Amino acid sequence: MKRIVLLGASGSIGDQVLDIVEDHPDQYVIIGLSVGRRVEKLAAYLRSHDVPYACVQYEEDRKALEVEFPNTVFFSGDEGLKKMSELQCDLFINALVGFAGVVPTLTAIKTGNTIALANKETLVAAGELVNQALQENNVKILPIDSEHSAIFQCIQNAPSSDVKRLIITASGGSFRDRTREELANVTVKDALSHPNWSMGSKITIDSATMMNKGFEVIEAHYLFDLPYTSIDTIMHRESIIHSMVEFKDHSVLAQLGQADMRIPIQVALSHPERLEMQRDNRLDLLKVGTLHFEELSHERYPLLALAYRVGKAKGALPCVMNAANEVAVSRFLKGEISFLDIERIVIGMVDAYENHPITSVDQLIQIDQETREKALLF
Amino acid sequence: MKRIVLLGASGSIGDQVLDIVEDHPDQYVIIGLSVGRRVEKLAAYLRSHDVPYACVQYEEDRKALEVEFPNTVFFSGDEGLKKMSELQCDLFINALVGFAGVVPTLTAIKTGNTIALANKETLVAAGELVNQALQENNVKILPIDSEHSAIFQCIQNAPSSDVKRLIITASGGSFRDRTREELANVTVKDALSHPNWSMGSKITIDSATMMNKGFEVIEAHYLFDLPYTSIDTIMHRESIIHSMVEFKDHSVLAQLGQADMRIPIQVALSHPERLEMQRDNRLDLLKVGTLHFEELSHERYPLLALAYRVGKAKGALPCVMNAANEVAVSRFLKGEISFLDIERIVIGMVDAYENHPITSVDQLIQIDQETREKALLF
Repeated sequence: MKRIVLLGASGSIGDQVLDIVEDHPDQYVIIGLSVGRRVEKLAAYLRSHDVPYACVQYEEDRKALEVEFPNTVFFSGDEGLKKMSELQCDLFINALVGFAGVVPTLTAIKTGNTIALANKETLVAAGELVNQALQENNVKILPIDSEHSAIFQCIQNAPSSDVKRLIITASGGSFRDRTREELANVTVKDALSHPNWSMGSKITIDSATMMNKGFEVIEAHYLFDLPYTSIDTIMHRESIIHSMVEFKDHSVLAQLGQADMRIPIQVALSHPERLEMQRDNRLDLLKVGTLHFEELSHERYPLLALAYRVGKAKGALPCVMNAANEVAVSRFLKGEISFLDIERIVIGMVDAYENHPITSVDQLIQIDQETREKALLF
Repeated sequence: MKRIVLLGASGSIGDQVLDIVEDHPDQYVIIGLSVGRRVEKLAAYLRSHDVPYACVQYEEDRKALEVEFPNTVFFSGDEGLKKMSELQCDLFINALVGFAGVVPTLTAIKTGNTIALANKETLVAAGELVNQALQENNVKILPIDSEHSAIFQCIQNAPSSDVKRLIITASGGSFRDRTREELANVTVKDALSHPNWSMGSKITIDSATMMNKGFEVIEAHYLFDLPYTSIDTIMHRESIIHSMVEFKDHSVLAQLGQADMRIPIQVALSHPERLEMQRDNRLDLLKVGTLHFEELSHERYPLLALAYRVGKAKGALPCVMNAANEVAVSRFLKGEISFLDIERIVIGMVDAYENHPITSVDQLIQIDQETREKALLF
């Protein structure tokens, strides 16, 4: 029985983690759960499950829940997330969205918990600090993202010196068939129509700008200990091959599956074993029929090119890029700026920043904060 | 340094094994080599390499070679192949074509040698005896065939209970775009034009009839300890995905690569490690562009359907099917019978045979012999 702490339980990934946990009641038990503002979702879960620990964003929500659920210990806010990350468990699942996921990951590593990671910003903004902490605490990260799960399954126990190249696939996002000129007047609604995946709104916009693929390149660099020159991306419209690993003997392994996050989630939860999937999501290649591969142009997707540049530069820049992007996407979703303004803000703020090394998480938090404030007006 | 014995050195696979050995002189050394009639190839190799043991088909060739190469011990005939299989080595590579490969494999297993297997008939005709011998002698088979190498690389150390289904890919062979009606008058030359692979003539014909894919299904059954209901085939024109494994959690792993046998050969030779490939055979998916998948119809390819039926029946039938097919293909290549006569002979002889269990290799040799004689006249 794996005892699981799940942060970000009310988001798209959190929902699907709970699906997989429900599918295997003899394998998994949730001992801690966090949501942000969607406390009704948390309350609904607590009504049917005994969960010893829970966390919400706001103090007033915490107080209300304590009354209804006297057998659960509640925390709130960032401090509460930190407390959740200090719980001893068999698997700590970080499905938070945004920079808010960084400190909980670092704390869970210090606690010695194995981590299943869906929070991209952990490795994008804080990759160097996280990798150092992993080594110091002898802790492992299991990826949940479909691309990294694919690579993880293909590499298995091979040393990174066996790998010639990772090939991360990209559907191309909502605007893959539009030229850059056609992007000037796209709407939020257009941008949220992802061709293959049903995901949260932040990541759907990041897929349209290809910032998301850039993040994945940086994450892959840290997860699999490979230089950026060994990490390629390719456009693959069908999202059936979730990524590939080319080995030094020119043999290539790929992982395929339906575009259903519950598959990589279950792979991470059950690792190092595999469990029977209880969902109707088998891949039928005869039905798919054809798989296409095209170049993913760095000219067409400048935020992908930026991510390579920023990833190689290291230091503060990845954190700046991430913070600028979070604010820009949020402003776009609110209708304050145009789609192409996202690129303008992110590239502009990275270019305006004088890079320097990062030595502590507090420093990172400060850079994140300052960048956000500037990005609101950039 | 792995000491290698290679049987069938002058065939297509044997040639490419020697390529890979030449590419890694610090890793591999040939200590034994066999050819059939192409003694000139053997002599050429011996002129530039010290090889302690060698074997040829005919006694007169043996005598001539002994004069030129006094430092090599020569054997001849089936008895010679058996002697070669009794040599202690780090890797015994069986690249013989046809039923002649069965006894050497069984002998090498008893010798305790790890076996890299390219000889299909070993598992097709003698799968039950071979598996029993493997268990008794605690010996492992490493597959060389591209399809089984793909499955082997995808499964790695997973237990067979993790596997839901193997998906063996097939290019469709030389006649994939012809209807059964159009097969009546095809020529030997037509049949030898394989769209993707450059291989020996026997296997190229077996690909056109899909007997080869049927053999691979039976081999996969024995290699990976899976029931026939868990082994599927799919038509994949490009021969880029060499086969796939669907796990019970609906995650699918696939192995991809150029249609170059030197890749799976090197994978087998270097197992459990990987070595740098020295050849210009990297896969470029952008150049390939598109991968197609279609149904591989058992009506269109009756020898594939037959292989499933015969594989499930076990006993003597697989040996009968194989022997009938070897003779039929040979007669077709000589222009004695038509392409569709191959199916007629193989299916006819299997249907006419009263099946029974197999208890010894001598019994198998006798059935093989009797079937061949009958197949010449069938």
